[in-house]
Amino acid sequence: VTPSGIITLSSDFGLSDPYVAMMKGVILSINPSAVLIDLAHMIKAGSVSQAAALIHETFVFYPAGTVHLVVVDPGVGSGRRPLAVQAGGHFFVGPDNGLFWPVIERDPEASLVHLRESRFFLPDVSRTFHGREIFAPVAAHLSMGVALERMGTKIDDPVRLSLPELRVTGDTLTGQIVRVDNFGNLVTNITAGQLWLFLGSGPFRIVVGNFEILKISGTYADGEQGEPLALINSSNVLEIAVNLGRASEYIGVRDEEIVGTPVRVIRA
Amino acid sequence: VTPSGIITLSSDFGLSDPYVAMMKGVILSINPSAVLIDLAHMIKAGSVSQAAALIHETFVFYPAGTVHLVVVDPGVGSGRRPLAVQAGGHFFVGPDNGLFWPVIERDPEASLVHLRESRFFLPDVSRTFHGREIFAPVAAHLSMGVALERMGTKIDDPVRLSLPELRVTGDTLTGQIVRVDNFGNLVTNITAGQLWLFLGSGPFRIVVGNFEILKISGTYADGEQGEPLALINSSNVLEIAVNLGRASEYIGVRDEEIVGTPVRVIRA
Amino acid sequence: VTPSGIITLSSDFGLSDPYVAMMKGVILSINPSAVLIDLAHMIKAGSVSQAAALIHETFVFYPAGTVHLVVVDPGVGSGRRPLAVQAGGHFFVGPDNGLFWPVIERDPEASLVHLRESRFFLPDVSRTFHGREIFAPVAAHLSMGVALERMGTKIDDPVRLSLPELRVTGDTLTGQIVRVDNFGNLVTNITAGQLWLFLGSGPFRIVVGNFEILKISGTYADGEQGEPLALINSSNVLEIAVNLGRASEYIGVRDEEIVGTPVRVIRA
Repeated sequence: VTPSGIITLSSDFGLSDPYVAMMKGVILSINPSAVLIDLAHMIKAGSVSQAAALIHETFVFYPAGTVHLVVVDPGVGSGRRPLAVQAGGHFFVGPDNGLFWPVIERDPEASLVHLRESRFFLPDVSRTFHGREIFAPVAAHLSMGVALERMGTKIDDPVRLSLPELRVTGDTLTGQIVRVDNFGNLVTNITAGQLWLFLGSGPFRIVVGNFEILKISGTYADGEQGEPLALINSSNVLEIAVNLGRASEYIGVRDEEIVGTPVRVIRA
Repeated sequence: VTPSGIITLSSDFGLSDPYVAMMKGVILSINPSAVLIDLAHMIKAGSVSQAAALIHETFVFYPAGTVHLVVVDPGVGSGRRPLAVQAGGHFFVGPDNGLFWPVIERDPEASLVHLRESRFFLPDVSRTFHGREIFAPVAAHLSMGVALERMGTKIDDPVRLSLPELRVTGDTLTGQIVRVDNFGNLVTNITAGQLWLFLGSGPFRIVVGNFEILKISGTYADGEQGEPLALINSSNVLEIAVNLGRASEYIGVRDEEIVGTPVRVIRA
Repeated sequence: VTPSGIITLSSDFGLSDPYVAMMKGVILSINPSAVLIDLAHMIKAGSVSQAAALIHETFVFYPAGTVHLVVVDPGVGSGRRPLAVQAGGHFFVGPDNGLFWPVIERDPEASLVHLRESRFFLPDVSRTFHGREIFAPVAAHLSMGVALERMGTKIDDPVRLSLPELRVTGDTLTGQIVRVDNFGNLVTNITAGQLWLFLGSGPFRIVVGNFEILKISGTYADGEQGEPLALINSSNVLEIAVNLGRASEYIGVRDEEIVGTPVRVIRA
């Protein structure tokens, strides 16, 4: 894979602290012509599953050979391994805590390297900020064409991520809400493929919180204003929305409990 | 107009979702040397008028030939047309919902194209995310010099934006607060030109919420700490501020109701 | 110092207003190949000390010759001088209000210039937005190699920043919390050097809010979940944290009062 020269950055560092800017400085000090793109820094602190979903959903839109630096690293300084991955035609750098499992899982050719070659790190590695001292410099070197294999030891036992799975009992397929987006739309873990395979062509209802929805709409502007609707979103999963409203405010579930709320698809 | 190679991005996508990063990936996959600049992504969900004002206020500071991608698109997937505009020496891409009206209105030479040539789009166009599938790729192609006319059909009936207008009754000019900035300053829709034309050189008072202000100050640091003041801001409109304080907290109007609050300029 | 072509931007403008995007447009209109990196725009409105600490902590990670544009400028339009500084191998541009004092203080060779040559400014300078009209264009010109000295008059009396100092009384060293980071960690103003010089090798306790901590840990993952711990952070200062928790929520001090809370290190 030839590097594209682009490095995306994702973290749970937020936008008030200097940590992201430090990583960018480190990268530009090694590769002054790297193109840096912020993917997301508002990931919930320590939420490996949220970060894993975001990067998996987004990386395919980037040119092959892009380096994706992801620092959601609650175990920094403990035993967890620093990791670089080549998979799906892209590079991924971050802690070995499940972040890249959805990407690795889908590419039988994925190569994984436990980062051990300290000449590709900053000279002083603290125990509290590997994003700056290990992952950013490694990302910079990968973006310049240094081969993954030179950076450490091959491994084949990455930490896996256990994501919530779908359950089928009788005529009911049960998934859950995994994310609320900026518009209050409720993103589920039920893909279009799973949905249609389960439903076939008969009638059905979708029950989530106090919503009961009887069809799949084409877009947000379908239906009456304020009415709940279900659609297949642009990432190809079932999403619950309200036309010109925030579904998260109408669903009748407390904000903190929306993620995880069951979504039941019932064959009529 | 020769493209500058710069693309600005504005949206109501916020900073937690992957949508902006997806659009950037799409652009860089088409034009790897595009320079991407975030203009604003914290626009109120669906607020076409806020986005229109921001882009109109800001685009002039960019080099001629810059492409401005603006995705505030509550009607995505319904009948509204996808649009590209060349006006004021710049390019604008987004839904035809009024976003670019303030720019179009001021340039009698503006060209408008209803985007129809799907070879400039992503191969699969969903009904829910035209920002990624139509507007981002079109912006990328424009930044590489593809002529606007090749991308669709010329139109001359864009959706207009109806913005709040000023009213003059007797000795009173009435405008309103259109935006609260990060410092709590209250931006009005009364331009410096309109203000001086109305006032001439006589005495006056400005009444807004529980403020009564008797002069135009030169800068925020004029006057006593905590005192309300009026000034002509850097975008050349009347702004209400409080020296070393947040005007929005002193004005005596509830936060949700500040935008829209009447601003009365009264000749004494 | 040869310019690196990189310009970092810091401000208290937040992410909803167009002010940052305007500054970027001005820079790119002068130097189209400048590389623009956001350092931080969520600095508390008017907080010169917060901005000064952030920039001082971060600039060293950038290549020599980088220009750091910092606009936290509560006195804009009043008498305060516009300033450009060359120090520590980097350039700094912003108001003369103490922002760059920590950088200047550490470099006896620092050159400071009161910006007066209006040919390096935008043609019209308002009294309310020098970030756009003076500092952004000056940063752009510096990034293209225009010599600092050509931009104004040398000065040697910059405004100093008075930062909270440490106090030693008997067996107690007292500092304070200066920042709460995105993880709820409490950053103090006690450097590792000062701590070890004071403590030597004997036993001690650290008292802050309702925490009492008896040792320095190596990383956040040390100790029991929910237990307060002290460590030397990646910027080499004493930091108070809670393993897998937000120290700011456990310390027993109201949010608004955490910054400034005394941190006492007591020799046992």
